[in-house]
Amino acid sequence: MRLLPDEPTIEEIDVFFNAKSVAIYGASATPNSVGQAILQNFIKPQYTGKVYAVNPKYTQVLGVPCFPSLQDIPDDIDLVVVAVPARIAPRVFEDIAQKGTKAAIVISGGFSETGSRGAELEDQIVRIGREHDIRIIGPNCVGVIDTHSHIDTFFLPEYRCGRPRASNVANISLVSQSGAFAAAISDWTSELGLGISKIISLGNKCDVDDDDLLRYLAQDDSTQVICFYTEGYDPGKGRSFFDTAKRVTPHKPVLVVKSGRGQRAKEAASSHTGSLAGSDRVVDAAYRQAGVIRADNFEQMFDMAKALAMQPPAKGNRVLMVTNGGGLGVMTTDALEALGLGIPHPSQDLQENLRKRLPAYCAVGNPIDVVGDTDASRYDIVFDEALKSDEYDIVVVGMLLQTPTLGMDVTNVIANHQRQSAIPFVVVAMGGAFTTKAGEIMELMGVPTYATGEKAALAAKALARYGEIKYGAEFRKSMRSDKP
Amino acid sequence: MRLLPDEPTIEEIDVFFNAKSVAIYGASATPNSVGQAILQNFIKPQYTGKVYAVNPKYTQVLGVPCFPSLQDIPDDIDLVVVAVPARIAPRVFEDIAQKGTKAAIVISGGFSETGSRGAELEDQIVRIGREHDIRIIGPNCVGVIDTHSHIDTFFLPEYRCGRPRASNVANISLVSQSGAFAAAISDWTSELGLGISKIISLGNKCDVDDDDLLRYLAQDDSTQVICFYTEGYDPGKGRSFFDTAKRVTPHKPVLVVKSGRGQRAKEAASSHTGSLAGSDRVVDAAYRQAGVIRADNFEQMFDMAKALAMQPPAKGNRVLMVTNGGGLGVMTTDALEALGLGIPHPSQDLQENLRKRLPAYCAVGNPIDVVGDTDASRYDIVFDEALKSDEYDIVVVGMLLQTPTLGMDVTNVIANHQRQSAIPFVVVAMGGAFTTKAGEIMELMGVPTYATGEKAALAAKALARYGEIKYGAEFRKSMRSDKP
Repeated sequence: MRLLPDEPTIEEIDVFFNAKSVAIYGASATPNSVGQAILQNFIKPQYTGKVYAVNPKYTQVLGVPCFPSLQDIPDDIDLVVVAVPARIAPRVFEDIAQKGTKAAIVISGGFSETGSRGAELEDQIVRIGREHDIRIIGPNCVGVIDTHSHIDTFFLPEYRCGRPRASNVANISLVSQSGAFAAAISDWTSELGLGISKIISLGNKCDVDDDDLLRYLAQDDSTQVICFYTEGYDPGKGRSFFDTAKRVTPHKPVLVVKSGRGQRAKEAASSHTGSLAGSDRVVDAAYRQAGVIRADNFEQMFDMAKALAMQPPAKGNRVLMVTNGGGLGVMTTDALEALGLGIPHPSQDLQENLRKRLPAYCAVGNPIDVVGDTDASRYDIVFDEALKSDEYDIVVVGMLLQTPTLGMDVTNVIANHQRQSAIPFVVVAMGGAFTTKAGEIMELMGVPTYATGEKAALAAKALARYGEIKYGAEFRKSMRSDKP
Repeated sequence: MRLLPDEPTIEEIDVFFNAKSVAIYGASATPNSVGQAILQNFIKPQYTGKVYAVNPKYTQVLGVPCFPSLQDIPDDIDLVVVAVPARIAPRVFEDIAQKGTKAAIVISGGFSETGSRGAELEDQIVRIGREHDIRIIGPNCVGVIDTHSHIDTFFLPEYRCGRPRASNVANISLVSQSGAFAAAISDWTSELGLGISKIISLGNKCDVDDDDLLRYLAQDDSTQVICFYTEGYDPGKGRSFFDTAKRVTPHKPVLVVKSGRGQRAKEAASSHTGSLAGSDRVVDAAYRQAGVIRADNFEQMFDMAKALAMQPPAKGNRVLMVTNGGGLGVMTTDALEALGLGIPHPSQDLQENLRKRLPAYCAVGNPIDVVGDTDASRYDIVFDEALKSDEYDIVVVGMLLQTPTLGMDVTNVIANHQRQSAIPFVVVAMGGAFTTKAGEIMELMGVPTYATGEKAALAAKALARYGEIKYGAEFRKSMRSDKP
């Protein structure tokens, strides 16, 4: 897929994720050092490229051959990971330039974030980089995790900071300005069962920035949804990001958490970012215009991203809720309504068709309540009739599994109707261990599953919002009366 | 503790949770039947009272002696659990009256929720109950779980519907109008690690209602926070609930999720509840006046309840945030500000005291950033100085554990300062397995821990809100300028 053809950046950025040979500059024999932790990631069997250490102090580190400079390595080097004190970095970049390597991740801090002396060092490496076409991620970052190539520059031990996995169903990539958040999210998503393709920590963004990553991830087939954590854009950089986003979002969903909404946070953010951080309202409007969906926080972003990665966008905003618990129906309907989605009652025809096939004590409004003693067959009937009717654009399924009558086969029923109709489905299943397992099975079949009605409603909203972005005027905004 | 002395209801209600002898009316030898599932709960070794089955068809069920009627049981019966068809219920109640038992949980459906014939049957059992001072929970409910006495009438198998546990730290009790939610929450909290004392499903509320349970739980020492899920109050019943709440809330926090905020949900709720469901704004005002804290959903309710159960209420709304990740500080501060909490900068004195003892690259604003390479000692310094200063009423601690430098001993540092200062603390720790374990340890020490800054901010808000309710005019509402 080439969403943005003729982008020179794409090949330049690709090497950060698919380097076949990597040199760790500053690799160290000292346990718990950053230079050792990064090298350790690359000697795990999952990474199949070649690895070299660079440090004049050693001839080998952890069994990896170590050289005094890049020049001494008898091989091409695709990517250099730099973990040396900032004051040495310019010399390291001369070495990179001479070697002809075109990509460097600078993990080290001590650059512009520490004041004018550090800023000077940063300017020097940027200058050398520009002269020799070296793209730079960082400095002052944790770098990159790619769950397919197993490039991993996160210097945090796995027992503290778990690494996410790729999913066969759908994957999300995340670009984070904050290294601490990148690490916390790597750790979090390792437990969350969310498919991740790439996590990129941008740090000071001295060269590679949000816009570069957006262009790259737009054409990355292993990324279904692009997520950003941003504190602000450098002067002039916001414009290019929004221009690119406008082209990308009709093809691939882009989500962002941007901190600094409030006055206090804005002050904090302004002190270390550019002008756009100044007005949250301007940023908000820019996102909206560019088709970027803004989340208030990471939880919301992941809840929305999961739905967008797994399900097709909605062609309109008419939601049908089907549930086996009345309370869950009421709570979820409340949340759907608060988010501005349509919850139209079934037409007279549809109601009659449903009444013919369901027990009399089921409620055939919206929500449709198939009641606590249901098995999977009533869900099957409801989906069959409702999808045939063409009265709905999104289906939210309440699946309370505490009763033994509802078997695990309901997951098949849901997944089959979703696939055949190509209408987006979202499931809400509140509960404990059995429910969690059922949710995992549901998601292996491609239907996103949430622990609360509010999360499911937010997922439905994201599918409708993205449908609006993708289909524009064709999106059916049917806020027709919800009376039968 | 006797919050509401001279309440005749207290002893009457207590028997539902502390019955020493129970009869299961409608106990059955049929596998997967409701009458068998309930009996099974009572023959688990955890329940130490006496159990009898009542069913003319058998002389024993699952090894439990079975009698044709209550009269035939050669023992007093404290509590009868009724699981018979609705049409038989009046006869069963005659039997209960003759036996002199004063408490009955009617699990069966088929009463007022099904129409006028069922309503007549319900009227009959209520009439018999009134004449003979029998208190009734239900009908059409799943009844009661008590994690201390192990009374458990939930007829859902444990492999589907996990049961919650009591905690040694602090416990919540939940009263739910919906049986499906009661079950889903039992199951959910079994995995959530939230201490639960009691879950009560009220069903049709033909006798025992929200007000009775509020009076009872107010004086129950094993309940630190009282939670309600309510769809509406029967005519006249809302008033007494709010009157009682006004007396309870200065002594014990009361939280409520009331569905039917939106138009659509209101319609659904009105159809099966009373007049108060009509105007959400009236209900909202009544809750506020009574000091009841309203949550939008269960997730929010549990997040707030956990903090209120574990921590003292705040004496004012000045929050200090301490973090080892700048981004987490910004995000959490955003959320605190959005909730209307004060985030004052440290005074000049406090800033100087902190600067003397912390590395120069730490930020001593609010948030105070002890930076990614911190160990527990910097947190210790910050708490020491900040709590001495008397400038803050709540402390929110960001604890990102992905770095190996921050040891598990930080949990001790946090807990010790919390205990010594008696100022409420809330922790936010984003991450995976290691972080989850650290959060569990933190909570064993009594400090509630959350996965996101937004949840931690909501917990802080609940502690401030409850401080306002408890301390009234003494609550310091210091919205002073947050400039240093």
